[in-house]
Parts: sequence; C-alpha cells; structure tokens
Amino acid sequence: MDGGTVGTDPRDLEGFSLFYWLAQGLGALIMVLVVLWTSNYRGGFAWSSNPALEFNWHPVLMSLGMIFIYANGIMTFRYMRYHRKRQLKLVHACCHVATFLLTVVGLCAVFDSHNLANPPIPNLYTLHSWVGLTAVILFCCQFVVGFASFLFPGAKQSLRAALMPVHRYFGMLGFLLAIAAALMGLLEKAIFALPNYKELPGEGMLINCIGALIVVFAAVVIFVVSNHGYRRVPMAEDETLLTAESQLG
Amino acid sequence: MDGGTVGTDPRDLEGFSLFYWLAQGLGALIMVLVVLWTSNYRGGFAWSSNPALEFNWHPVLMSLGMIFIYANGIMTFRYMRYHRKRQLKLVHACCHVATFLLTVVGLCAVFDSHNLANPPIPNLYTLHSWVGLTAVILFCCQFVVGFASFLFPGAKQSLRAALMPVHRYFGMLGFLLAIAAALMGLLEKAIFALPNYKELPGEGMLINCIGALIVVFAAVVIFVVSNHGYRRVPMAEDETLLTAESQLG
Repeated sequence: MDGGTVGTDPRDLEGFSLFYWLAQGLGALIMVLVVLWTSNYRGGFAWSSNPALEFNWHPVLMSLGMIFIYANGIMTFRYMRYHRKRQLKLVHACCHVATFLLTVVGLCAVFDSHNLANPPIPNLYTLHSWVGLTAVILFCCQFVVGFASFLFPGAKQSLRAALMPVHRYFGMLGFLLAIAAALMGLLEKAIFALPNYKELPGEGMLINCIGALIVVFAAVVIFVVSNHGYRRVPMAEDETLLTAESQLG
Repeated sequence: MDGGTVGTDPRDLEGFSLFYWLAQGLGALIMVLVVLWTSNYRGGFAWSSNPALEFNWHPVLMSLGMIFIYANGIMTFRYMRYHRKRQLKLVHACCHVATFLLTVVGLCAVFDSHNLANPPIPNLYTLHSWVGLTAVILFCCQFVVGFASFLFPGAKQSLRAALMPVHRYFGMLGFLLAIAAALMGLLEKAIFALPNYKELPGEGMLINCIGALIVVFAAVVIFVVSNHGYRRVPMAEDETLLTAESQLG
C-alpha cells in the first residue's frame, strides 16, 4: 500500500535504481530474443494472408503488452515517485491503454492463425489459453474499474481509498497470470513445433532461455513493486489535488 | 512484513476465516482431483517395477508437497496468530520438512520413470522442468538459511530482523514458481499423453480444471499472505523468548 504520512520520506530506497533498471534491461532482452526467435526460427511475420506466420505476432505482442509494458505500468508509481499524482495516474493509464491495444491485436493474430489454418485448429482448449484468457479478462476488468474509480474525477476519496488495496491485489494477480501464461505458451509452442525438443536443439534452448529470463524479470518486478521501502510517499500536492477534485465531483 | 508495535491488535481481520478455509477447501479438492486423475485415467500407482505408473507419484507428491503443504507453511503465522512464536516457527518448519520429503520422493519418481523407460526419456529438457527445478532449489536454499537464521537459537536478533523481508520474499517467490511449474506440468502431460487434447476429452477437461483450481487456490493464498490487515502482531511473549534466546546464544 502506498499509504503513509504526507511529506515523510520513503523508508529505504537502497538498491531501487539497480533493480528498476535490471527489470528494464531484462524486459528489453526478452523482447529482442522473442523477435529473434520468431523471425529466425519461425519464419518471420505476415498477417491473414499467411496464418502460420500471422501466429508469430502473438508471442511478440503479448510479451510486449502483457509482460513488458504491463510491468512498466505497475512500476510507474515507484519510478516517478516525485512527480505529481495526476501525471503518474496518466502515465499508469497510458501504459495500460498500450497493453490493451497490443493484447487485442495479439489475440486477433492467434485466433486468425487457428481459424484460417487448413484444417482449422480449435481455439481455447489448452490450459495456456485458459490461464491467458483469465489474465486478459482480469486486466480488462481492472482497467474499467480503475479508470472509473481513480482517473474519473467524480469518484469519492473514501471509495478510492477502499478500492486501492483491491486494485493493487488484482493488478499484481493479473501480472502473475500473464507470466504463467507466457511460460505455458512458450512450453506448448516448443512441444508442438519441435519434434526433437527432447534433444534441446538451438531453438528449444532459446525458448527455454526466454522462459528463464521471464522468470527472473518477474522476480525483479515483484521485488520492486512489493518492497515496502520503495513505496511512494504521498506529497503535499496530492492533498491539493484531492480537494480540487472533490470540488469538481 | 510482520513488524508492528508489541501488543497492538491487527488492523483488520475481516474475511480472514473465509479466505483461509476457502484455501484449505480448494487445496483438498485439488488433491482429490489429482489422485482421481492419476488413478482413473493414468492407470494408478507403482514404483520402479513399472516406470510409467511410477510417474503418477510425481504430480500427486509435488502437488501435496510444493503446493498444498507449502501453502500451509506460509499461512501458519496468519492462522495460528495467537500461539507462542516458538510454536509457530516449529509448525512452519515441520510443514517445510514435509514438503522437502514429499518433493524428494516426487522427484525420484519422475527421474526413475524417465531413466527406466524403454527407451529412456531424457531428463530436464522442458521449460516445466527448468522452472520446477528452480522452485525446488530455491525452496531448499530457503530451508537451510531459514533454519540457520530463525530456528537455530544462536542467531542474533538484528540478523533475523534484516533477513525477515528476504525470507518472506523468496518464500513467496518459491511458491509462485511452484504454481507456475504445476500449471506447466499439467499442460505438458495433457499434450504428451492425449492425442485428442484439442477435442477436450474428459481427461483433458479434468486436467484443465485442476489447473484452473490451482490458479484460484494460489490467488486466495497470495491474498491471505499479502493482506497487511491479516499480519500477525508480535505478542509480549515474543520479547521474553528473544531475551532468553539471546542469553542462550
């Protein structure tokens, strides 16, 4: 929780920059490796003219949206701690708008690649798809409730305070589900696409390494977001903003 | 963090019993379904005389140890909040001893089932095995460091206080990795063992439902363990215990 006395300093910011930039570096490395994997081993990218290649947008866009940008969204209040709260909320919301758009296109890509294949491949039968869809639905619910409660000026401060722990819990849960879905997606693609996965060929090793990096990335992001010493301490301007907003509301 | 002023009451225990017993009910249901799945659909249990059936101990023992009992271990300090701290530590440690023993046997089962198969199946090549092994190694390191720091009477209180956030973070990370590994294990077993998984036969549906229940179980356990209002507030006896221990040390 980001609660605390207005104006006091955070308890302990030691190591924050290291872990924050480690997360950014790992996230960037994961994206580079996912693009290298899909372009070098899986034949590159196309849209509905070639459903097999259209699939390749799915891992790229879902990793970018539901993993990398989602993580940046939940780390906003830690990294930009000295900015005005209204700015932070807008950056947080913009990250999630980007996540939403990338997710919509990433899901279109996988549904198209199944439906336009010859013969068509059934949708939503693997446990990966169940967990992934749960993560996306949870994210969308969070987005709507979060927008209406925290960004829309009419919501009462008491409602916001009551919803904040719920918002934080489901935000973290959505991120964890996205991580689990990504790992399961990599695993099922390796099994489906690599007849010699058990010999760990170059592509199998690359897929496993991407998975291992996603685990380390998630571990660092969870640390940055859950470490009590890294929480943002409310600033005096927050109070002014609240008063102005309650007058508007 | 379980810090706080000695003798003060926890902030808000509302809903604790509901969520705690929901977690227990879900954990028990998962165990029943895993046993039903392996005995009804996978041919039941044997040891090394029948490597294919020996495998079936793997999902049963890993779910029991690394998911259900591990979760009980990390919830001990929330459920038994009014017991003496020494008792809590012993229950916490006993849960993890049970987890360790079940995990050792569960890993023997899967290595045997690979090594004794004809032809043998390679070990540790899937992403499931990488994530699962990481969870087990992390758990073992936590166990050794936790025992030496928190149960062994010689450790200084300042060291314990410094290690507590680290212990809690890696304890939760190990649990999350075990959950991810379980989901990936269910997924790869469904793909390997069910040629008609895409038609979602009864066994495929059962495997997916076990996975979905594991997600809900994990969500409830995370809530119980991370909700600040549910933390145990130190009792006056804790201080007496600390003084006695520092005299022993």
